[in-house]
Amino acid sequence: MTSAADRLDARASGKTTPRSSLRASRVAPFLAMDIMAAAAIRDRQGDGVIHMEVGQPSAPAPRGVIEAARRALDSGRLPYTDALGMPALRARIARHYRDGYGLTVAPERIIVTTGSSAGFVLAFLSLFDAGARVAVPQPGYPAYRSILHALDLVPAPMILRDEDRFAPTSASLRELHRREALSGVLVMSPANPSGTVIEPARLAELCATARDLGLPFISDEIYHGLGYGVPTETALRFDDDAIVINSFSKTYCMTGWRIGWMVVPPWLVRPIERLAQNLYISAPYLSQVAAMAAFDAMEEAETIRLGYAANRALLLDAFPSLGLGKTHPADGAFYLYADVADLTDDAASFCRRMLEEAGVAATPGLDFDAAEGGHHVRFSFAGSEQDCAEAVRRLKTWLG
Amino acid sequence: MTSAADRLDARASGKTTPRSSLRASRVAPFLAMDIMAAAAIRDRQGDGVIHMEVGQPSAPAPRGVIEAARRALDSGRLPYTDALGMPALRARIARHYRDGYGLTVAPERIIVTTGSSAGFVLAFLSLFDAGARVAVPQPGYPAYRSILHALDLVPAPMILRDEDRFAPTSASLRELHRREALSGVLVMSPANPSGTVIEPARLAELCATARDLGLPFISDEIYHGLGYGVPTETALRFDDDAIVINSFSKTYCMTGWRIGWMVVPPWLVRPIERLAQNLYISAPYLSQVAAMAAFDAMEEAETIRLGYAANRALLLDAFPSLGLGKTHPADGAFYLYADVADLTDDAASFCRRMLEEAGVAATPGLDFDAAEGGHHVRFSFAGSEQDCAEAVRRLKTWLG
Repeated sequence: MTSAADRLDARASGKTTPRSSLRASRVAPFLAMDIMAAAAIRDRQGDGVIHMEVGQPSAPAPRGVIEAARRALDSGRLPYTDALGMPALRARIARHYRDGYGLTVAPERIIVTTGSSAGFVLAFLSLFDAGARVAVPQPGYPAYRSILHALDLVPAPMILRDEDRFAPTSASLRELHRREALSGVLVMSPANPSGTVIEPARLAELCATARDLGLPFISDEIYHGLGYGVPTETALRFDDDAIVINSFSKTYCMTGWRIGWMVVPPWLVRPIERLAQNLYISAPYLSQVAAMAAFDAMEEAETIRLGYAANRALLLDAFPSLGLGKTHPADGAFYLYADVADLTDDAASFCRRMLEEAGVAATPGLDFDAAEGGHHVRFSFAGSEQDCAEAVRRLKTWLG
Repeated sequence: MTSAADRLDARASGKTTPRSSLRASRVAPFLAMDIMAAAAIRDRQGDGVIHMEVGQPSAPAPRGVIEAARRALDSGRLPYTDALGMPALRARIARHYRDGYGLTVAPERIIVTTGSSAGFVLAFLSLFDAGARVAVPQPGYPAYRSILHALDLVPAPMILRDEDRFAPTSASLRELHRREALSGVLVMSPANPSGTVIEPARLAELCATARDLGLPFISDEIYHGLGYGVPTETALRFDDDAIVINSFSKTYCMTGWRIGWMVVPPWLVRPIERLAQNLYISAPYLSQVAAMAAFDAMEEAETIRLGYAANRALLLDAFPSLGLGKTHPADGAFYLYADVADLTDDAASFCRRMLEEAGVAATPGLDFDAAEGGHHVRFSFAGSEQDCAEAVRRLKTWLG
């Protein structure tokens, strides 16, 4: 262990600074955080920033969720639960697959997690050993890459292309596997940052290809329920062995509650249970009780989705005249991912200036895409309609 | 990657069952879970089990904590926080070090975590690369070993000995380092399962030895505040670079809230922040708000501690006549760890019979100690005084 020796030198001599692990050093910082921090400073100065940089709903959790949490608080005692989650919540999620997708999923295959974050850690640790290569979309959610690095796994970028509507394809998966000898593949639909929804037929094809190649298929479905005129189909429809990761964060406005779930094949339940017992003990009790009420709040969720739809329409209408018209599909989720190559080749400083000069915060693309991110910007439309309208007004003045 | 190849065979041929990762397979199941499951079945049958198998308080969280949570719920919006935690909570924890220990700790060095579980994961990932050996106490909290295995690290057992009051010593740490070329050391005081509190002078010595050997010193202080007539001193007193892991779970009865903290040296803050952003996003919002009120509930916490002290006295008084008198020190925490060699050499079946025949659930020692655990049983006294008294009555009849 050279790191131990280094540390010995460092601590004994008192001369050099001790170092963190190599795997920690492979985890890149989020550029988005700089924008968020700068936006927060302007907020405190009373400068009224329009926040389009954050990937979370501005609406509160559904009333029924809050009520359920309140009732649980009355008892005062919020203990650990089973590592796999409260049986009643696992059963409720199973019913959601029946009601929402017409699919039968045994509650025993459902694992309640501390947000989708825990779902990724548990999926990666239970499936892959150090050095394994896992295909992840690029552009894509930066935590995929970072969690893989932290766990000594190797992200293999699946480059999403304009001619494929920025959806991963079977052909590109096969090609990547040939080059990289993959151990697994992760896809996301609706996607962050692109918004692209993989068409059901394409998703079926991807599932079949992964099966053919012997690759576990991990499907991040956290933005399910947030589609705009397109169906969001679960990978479980096409592959009963798919590992599905989902969460109450986005669709039910429960980000800070840290509560999500996985659906896994039967043989993976026990390994994940052992990992979860040790790495998490259990997901938060109160959030589990509250989440049980989320699926009963479909009307509230639909009202919120209609708000996003209006915001999306407003932005899609206004953006072309601002030079921001080259966006990824935005079939679902709550993002517009705009190619700003005509305006800048340095999206990070573009975003800084947009914040300083126009008071609009958005996320530069490099977090999502090391190759093309330098000329992309992600705008979240999960805020209010007034905020979106005001953002358009400000951008018009600034870019006009 | 043989695992990928295996999986390919498995999935393509449909003949064999796919396998989880090797690292997941190194994580042992908890024997305690069998007892907990059996106890739960008897409970449902109405058999009135006395639960001494669970490591969590039976008391509710302090009133002020519940009230703070209730107020936060009123807003309905519980968003992500900074990955390092709410600034106000970090400041409140810093004040706790001033008020409770007379120590100045900068809030910037305090990291709010999703329970102490996240603290261990973040400490191990940020400090150690694959293959590194980390000294952990034996007997000890089984998750240390399991988390290390899951992250491709190697637990090096520090055998705790009767002649040392089951506390780790500088000599044994030096000896272990000579044999195992350690990369770090973890100690716990008060300890689970033994209850041993490391005397301040011994703790100071351990810190100095670790520094001398160039080893990061991780101090699990989750049972601080739960001592019986002995001082529980923080490693920070003796080594400003110590990595301290703590939680609101035990002392403030907040297990299912999943909220804890770390104190780390300045150079480790940024690496942990990057890891936490990706692996956790943030600790639960509501639990962070609620935890801010925990340190103001010292009176309630003290009342609960006095209840544990009474339970402890009751058990220490009754156990010798039951043949359960050979216990570890029990200076703190809420466990009696009894050597039952005079009664059995198979603690697991002893615990099963004790549950079935006496209606008392306790945890067999093998989870804590692969070597000596076969003839040890851990009794938790975190329940009510009535329960403890009833347990003694039942055990008297059963063992008498």
